[in-house]
Amino acid sequence: MIKIAIMGYGVVGSGVAEVLSMNHDIISSRAGQEIEIAKILDLRSFDDSPYAELFTKDFNDILNDKSIKIVAETIGGLDPSYEFTKKLLKAGKSVVSSNKELVAQKGDELLSIAKENNVNYLFEASVGGGIPIIRPLHSCLAANKIEWIQGILNGTTNFIMTKMIEEKLSFEQALLLAQKLGYAEKDPTADIGGADANRKICILASLAYGKHVYPHEVHQYGIEDVTLADVAFAQSMGCVIKLIARAKKLENGKISMMVCPAIIPVSSKLASINDVYNAILVKGNAVGEVLFVGAGAGKMPTASAVIADIVDAVKANNTSISQYWAPSCESAVSNYREDVIKFYLRLQADDVEAAKEFILNNYTTPIILSRLDQPENEIAFKTDFMLEDDVKKLTISLTEKGFKQLSKIRILD
Amino acid sequence: MIKIAIMGYGVVGSGVAEVLSMNHDIISSRAGQEIEIAKILDLRSFDDSPYAELFTKDFNDILNDKSIKIVAETIGGLDPSYEFTKKLLKAGKSVVSSNKELVAQKGDELLSIAKENNVNYLFEASVGGGIPIIRPLHSCLAANKIEWIQGILNGTTNFIMTKMIEEKLSFEQALLLAQKLGYAEKDPTADIGGADANRKICILASLAYGKHVYPHEVHQYGIEDVTLADVAFAQSMGCVIKLIARAKKLENGKISMMVCPAIIPVSSKLASINDVYNAILVKGNAVGEVLFVGAGAGKMPTASAVIADIVDAVKANNTSISQYWAPSCESAVSNYREDVIKFYLRLQADDVEAAKEFILNNYTTPIILSRLDQPENEIAFKTDFMLEDDVKKLTISLTEKGFKQLSKIRILD
Repeated sequence: MIKIAIMGYGVVGSGVAEVLSMNHDIISSRAGQEIEIAKILDLRSFDDSPYAELFTKDFNDILNDKSIKIVAETIGGLDPSYEFTKKLLKAGKSVVSSNKELVAQKGDELLSIAKENNVNYLFEASVGGGIPIIRPLHSCLAANKIEWIQGILNGTTNFIMTKMIEEKLSFEQALLLAQKLGYAEKDPTADIGGADANRKICILASLAYGKHVYPHEVHQYGIEDVTLADVAFAQSMGCVIKLIARAKKLENGKISMMVCPAIIPVSSKLASINDVYNAILVKGNAVGEVLFVGAGAGKMPTASAVIADIVDAVKANNTSISQYWAPSCESAVSNYREDVIKFYLRLQADDVEAAKEFILNNYTTPIILSRLDQPENEIAFKTDFMLEDDVKKLTISLTEKGFKQLSKIRILD
Repeated sequence: MIKIAIMGYGVVGSGVAEVLSMNHDIISSRAGQEIEIAKILDLRSFDDSPYAELFTKDFNDILNDKSIKIVAETIGGLDPSYEFTKKLLKAGKSVVSSNKELVAQKGDELLSIAKENNVNYLFEASVGGGIPIIRPLHSCLAANKIEWIQGILNGTTNFIMTKMIEEKLSFEQALLLAQKLGYAEKDPTADIGGADANRKICILASLAYGKHVYPHEVHQYGIEDVTLADVAFAQSMGCVIKLIARAKKLENGKISMMVCPAIIPVSSKLASINDVYNAILVKGNAVGEVLFVGAGAGKMPTASAVIADIVDAVKANNTSISQYWAPSCESAVSNYREDVIKFYLRLQADDVEAAKEFILNNYTTPIILSRLDQPENEIAFKTDFMLEDDVKKLTISLTEKGFKQLSKIRILD
C-alpha cells in the first residue's frame, strides 16, 4: 500500500479523489498495490466531504509525513506551487502535476531536482487534459527526430472557432455562449489571448527538443480579432481558421515557436477537430504524422492523466523515470521575424482598384479572394511565402497608402 | 553501450537498422547509452549490406551471446518466432516484437515467461505500426475502465474502402490498385478477410481487459462482399462503410469481440480516417473518447515503434516493466449470437412490394432505404437493435420466401 497526498482540492484535485475511488480496483491492480489518499491540502474547509478528516491547511503536514511518497499538485499557478514542489522533491517525494504554468516556467529546474533526488516529476495532465501526449512523445516516439508539432491545445478557443465556422456566430456571441456553458471563464484572457496554448506548446517543444523553451519566446496572438468575414474568406480557400500552436525545427537547428489563429485546409487532420476537443499532430522523421485527439480539459479526463502519472510513479519505485530537458539557451528559439510563412490579409479601401494594383505590384504572386456579401470597399488576398519581417514592412506601407488593415492571419497549408 | 540483435532482415528488420543509424545520436541520448547492433539473423545473405559481417544464419549465435541484452523479433509468424522468443526470454534477454500473430496467439505465455525471468517482452509495433497505442493503453489510460475500443486496424482494407467511397471503384478494381501500389500483397486474404485486424484487436482487448483473447473467439468478416450499392445506401444514411475492429465490455462482464465491415456515421471520429491510415478510438470511463491516428504499417513507422521498445528495454535495465495479462478463460468472450446490433440488409426480390410487406411485418421498426440508380428488383433497409441470432433467423426466413440476400452489414451508430 502506498500513501499519496493531493494539494489543491479544486476541479482537478477533487477529480483525482473521485476517479481513485470510482476505479479503485483496476487502478490498484495496474499499480501493483493499493493507493491510499493520506492527506489533502486546501485552504478551504470541506466538512461534508467523505475525505473531511484528511484535509489540512498546513503544507508541512504533507512535507513532513514520511509515509507519503507521491504528491499530486493540482493547485495551479506559480505561487506557492513552485516552492511546494521543490521542497517535496528535495524531501524525496515524487510529484505529479496538472500545472502547465509551473512546468512551462520551471520545468527544467524541477526535472533536474527530481533527478538529483532520485524521484519523479511527471506532468501528463499539463497538456491536452486526458490525451496521452507527454509519455508518447517522450517514450513511444523516442526513435524519431521531431520535425514539428502542431496542436489545437485550448478547448475554449476551439469551441469559439467551431461556433463561428459552423453556426456563423460572431466572436462575441460565441464567447458568451462558451461562458454560459462553462467552457470559458469570466475572465477568458488566458484562453482567447493564446497564453494557455502557449504554455502547452512550450512544454511539448521542451520535451521534443531537449531544451527549455519559455512562453515569452513564443510569437503569440489570440483569436479576439478574428471576424466572420475572415471565416468566410478562409472557406473560399477551402480552409478553416483554428488557434494553432506550433513548434518547428528549422534547418538552421533553431526552433520556430508560434501560437496564433491560422488558416488550415479542411483536408488537414486538425481541421475536423471541433468543439472543446484538443488535438496534437506530431511529425517524426521515421514515424511520419501521428495524431492524438481527446478532451483537452475537464475534471475527469484531467484527473485520469494525473492518476496515470501516480501509477507510473508507484511502479517506478524510487528510480527516476522522468523525462529530462536542459535549461534554456539563448540561441535555441529563432526570432519570429525570420519565419517564412504565407499570409491572408483583409483591407478596407475607398479605392479598391488602387489597392488591388498596389498589392499586385508589391507582393509575390498574391491571390485576390472573394466572398459572399463582400462590401464594395473590402479587399482580401493571400500571399506566397514571405519573411514575417517583410510582411510587417508591407502592411506598414499599405497603411501609409491609406488602406486600412482589417485582418492579418497566417496560412499553414 | 548496449548490444542488441535483429532477427529477420525483411521490411521491418532492415528498417530498424536504418532508423537506428539515421537517428543514432538522439536515440542514444534518449536511451541513456549507445545502442549497437551486434548480430542480425536471416537465412538469406546480404553481402552488400553495410552490416554484412553481422549476419548469421544460426539462431544459437544470438542465444548464446551473453553480451546481447535485447533482441528485436521481426520475423513474423509463429514458427520459429515462438520457440526463439521463449528461449531468448528464458536466457535473460528482453525481446521486442512487431509480430502480431505471435502476440495474439501466445502473448499471455510469453509475458509470463518474461516476468519470471525479470526481462521484458514488448510489442508496440504489433498494432497500428508507428502509432503509439500499446503503451498509452497500458500506462496513460491506467486510471480508466475501458468501455470499448474501436479501430481501423488494417491499412489495406481502409485504402480499398476509401477508393470505393471516394472514387466509386468496385472492390475488385480497388484491390488491384492497392496491389499495384504495394499496399496489398499478392495473396491479400489475411488483410481483406479481416484476420490481420482480428489479431490486432485481440492484442488490444487482452491488454485492456487483462485476459488473453484469441482470434478464433472473434466474430470475423472481411470486406470482400461489400459492393458499390452498399456504399451508396450507406451514403443515403449519412454514413460510410469501414472495416471496424471492436472490443466492448458488456454489462454482464463479458467482452464482445467483432471484426467486420460496418456502417458508421460520417460524424464518427473514424469516418474521416482514409487511405492506408489506421486509427484507434478508445472509450475510458474517466477520460472519455481518445483517438490515435497514424500510418498503420510501412518500414519506417513500424521500425520507429520497435526502437521505442528497445529504448524502453534499455532504460528498464533488467526490471520488468512489461504489461501483463492472464491466460484466457472460457467465459471471458461473449457469444456473438447474444450481441444486440442494428443491421442493414439488401435483397433481390422479383416482387418488391411483397418483400417490403414481409420486412415491415417481421422486423422491429425497419427503415426502407433508397439510392440513385436503384434496380427495380432491389430493396434495402435498416433494422433497429436486434439479437444477432434473431437476424440470422430472419435472413433464413427471407431466403425461404424466395428473396435473395445480397448484403448484410452491421450498423454502428
